[in-house]
Amino acid sequence: MTLLASLITPACIIDESKLRANAKRMQEKCARENLILRPHVKTLKSLQAAEIYAPAPSPITVSTLAEARYFASAGYSDILYAVGISPNKVKAINELLSADVGLTVIVDSMAGAKALTEVAPQLDGSLRVAVEVDVDNQRAGINPNASTLVEIARLLSDTRKLQFKGLMAHAGASYQCFSQEAKDKMAQQECEQINVAVASLAKAGISCEMVSVGSTPTALADISHEGITELRAGVYATFDCVMAGINLCEYTDIALSVLTSVIGHQQEKGWVLIDAGWMALSRDKGTTGQKKDCGYGLVCDIHGNLLPGWYVSQTNQEHGVIAHVDGRSPMEDVFSYGSMLRILPIHACATASQFAQYHVTRDNHSVSAQWSRIHGW
Amino acid sequence: MTLLASLITPACIIDESKLRANAKRMQEKCARENLILRPHVKTLKSLQAAEIYAPAPSPITVSTLAEARYFASAGYSDILYAVGISPNKVKAINELLSADVGLTVIVDSMAGAKALTEVAPQLDGSLRVAVEVDVDNQRAGINPNASTLVEIARLLSDTRKLQFKGLMAHAGASYQCFSQEAKDKMAQQECEQINVAVASLAKAGISCEMVSVGSTPTALADISHEGITELRAGVYATFDCVMAGINLCEYTDIALSVLTSVIGHQQEKGWVLIDAGWMALSRDKGTTGQKKDCGYGLVCDIHGNLLPGWYVSQTNQEHGVIAHVDGRSPMEDVFSYGSMLRILPIHACATASQFAQYHVTRDNHSVSAQWSRIHGW
Repeated sequence: MTLLASLITPACIIDESKLRANAKRMQEKCARENLILRPHVKTLKSLQAAEIYAPAPSPITVSTLAEARYFASAGYSDILYAVGISPNKVKAINELLSADVGLTVIVDSMAGAKALTEVAPQLDGSLRVAVEVDVDNQRAGINPNASTLVEIARLLSDTRKLQFKGLMAHAGASYQCFSQEAKDKMAQQECEQINVAVASLAKAGISCEMVSVGSTPTALADISHEGITELRAGVYATFDCVMAGINLCEYTDIALSVLTSVIGHQQEKGWVLIDAGWMALSRDKGTTGQKKDCGYGLVCDIHGNLLPGWYVSQTNQEHGVIAHVDGRSPMEDVFSYGSMLRILPIHACATASQFAQYHVTRDNHSVSAQWSRIHGW
Repeated sequence: MTLLASLITPACIIDESKLRANAKRMQEKCARENLILRPHVKTLKSLQAAEIYAPAPSPITVSTLAEARYFASAGYSDILYAVGISPNKVKAINELLSADVGLTVIVDSMAGAKALTEVAPQLDGSLRVAVEVDVDNQRAGINPNASTLVEIARLLSDTRKLQFKGLMAHAGASYQCFSQEAKDKMAQQECEQINVAVASLAKAGISCEMVSVGSTPTALADISHEGITELRAGVYATFDCVMAGINLCEYTDIALSVLTSVIGHQQEKGWVLIDAGWMALSRDKGTTGQKKDCGYGLVCDIHGNLLPGWYVSQTNQEHGVIAHVDGRSPMEDVFSYGSMLRILPIHACATASQFAQYHVTRDNHSVSAQWSRIHGW
């Protein structure tokens, strides 16, 4: 039996029971609404983790074609690549089509759609294409009222080897919704705006097999997702300090943490130095601007129990500095040289991506499994 | 011949001639001062890159024991691991000693020194230990005036299988020094403070074989490094926007960039969407607070020519948003759908670590080599 205490630090720890509980919460939500759940696997990018929250052949969402290949090789055959396609990725897409993977790509412009029609003759199979709709004025997507939407859908529908699949939207603005009311309102807006696009296509005689929306906050919102066929969400599986900061979960629900060792002190400053810097924790400071600024992460003991008020205040590449919000001196027993701690991530997707593998625990004392993950594009 | 234009984006590009010029600048600086250069290989973590700026058997600095193993396997035998040691790394250290690697570790507390003396009997060879001195009140290290410094050095010297090697310091505060005068002053302080520690040990009859200082700005400072045996620096090999922002280099000296494709637009906002988000660029925003905030990176054309005023203003995992500082509309030719661009990194160490390999170019048109790198601990 490998103990957490015997691992080389820094290491990335997954609390399996928390992961299962988080997965169940979203699965039950979708079941209640009778909606397809298409988890975004970009947070952990791990087949073993996905067995818990998106067991094959679940439809999945990916953020890179490397993820598409990795999950396809394990039997996932309904894959939405949710980043606007660029021309230099056609060869990689073709390889997936040759392997009979049901891949859906997205475009949000006539230029993107035309580029696909130009390469369509070379495709080794039928490529599903969805159009991204902008529902919150935040990032990508076509305005649901834009007339080009119908033109794009028609062009895609009329092109051999392309299959117009429907619409997708992502209300990233929900990450700034702190109250339940605000989250529900944003989820409602996400649905309403994509339905404007659905209606405009319907008027032109074009139907949408897929009407896909989601972000973790809007997927969990307390609304009925009228007119929607499926929900997408990713970070719900582990949650993180950003999600806890918008009151979507408790800090104790966070399933991912970074195991670290105390390597020194600066006593006059009340600092504890640890061997987890930004290379382990990531540079994400997503809680700056939230009510509770968690710096680079909140501090727990080795068993995952929160040490209230302690957070990672600074990071360099391999050094982290732990301090107390009130400037308290570190407790000698907990923070002695060589002691091990666990840091809850600000943004789980960013922190998880700093590691090649996860050490899984069921009892917060020992390692029950090691899960692999992938990187790259 | 592989063209840059045929690569799958995002990809990490190294401009070999810039890397060589940056390497030469530091080598000449050390040669002029007759100082040993111990490059920090943590920026690129690549054997092929190190052949240019730290060819074996150059002494090197590493930030992880994984780097120590990787470089040791290629013939590097004088390796300083410049992060305070933690007890759970002793086994990995022992493996290096068994392979006859000349490894130096650091401690900055009596607790750390005692932990080493406790494991010393189990060591498979002689372990060199340096003491870290705090010269700028920024991070780790013992106060050069502290009496425990002598006690620690004596304990290390008196322990079988441990070899007290000397002192090291890192003036990380130099990253906030914008003028030449401020950088020179900080470099002077780095030298003076470590020399206080050297003198205090000398008084107790303990000599230092190694007196090691450095950070890229202080190593390049216009001072004579009195009493110092070696300089350490890392990011000078590639430079980045943070270093250009403190006037240590020109933006045109930056040897690393991220190749990306235009995947969409939000015309009303003047936004260009690219397929390089924080997964490719990292979340580092190190120029916030500098005179010129470069966001997540400055934008060049595919050949590496800066497009003045264009920068990456926002990132999500796989999406970046390019905007102009004056809110200008994107030029249609340069930023058309599918166009390729290169982004200069805010912090080269963070950006480089997001990639498994580098694509090297000599002419900014074609790929002359692929270099590998390592990750992890």
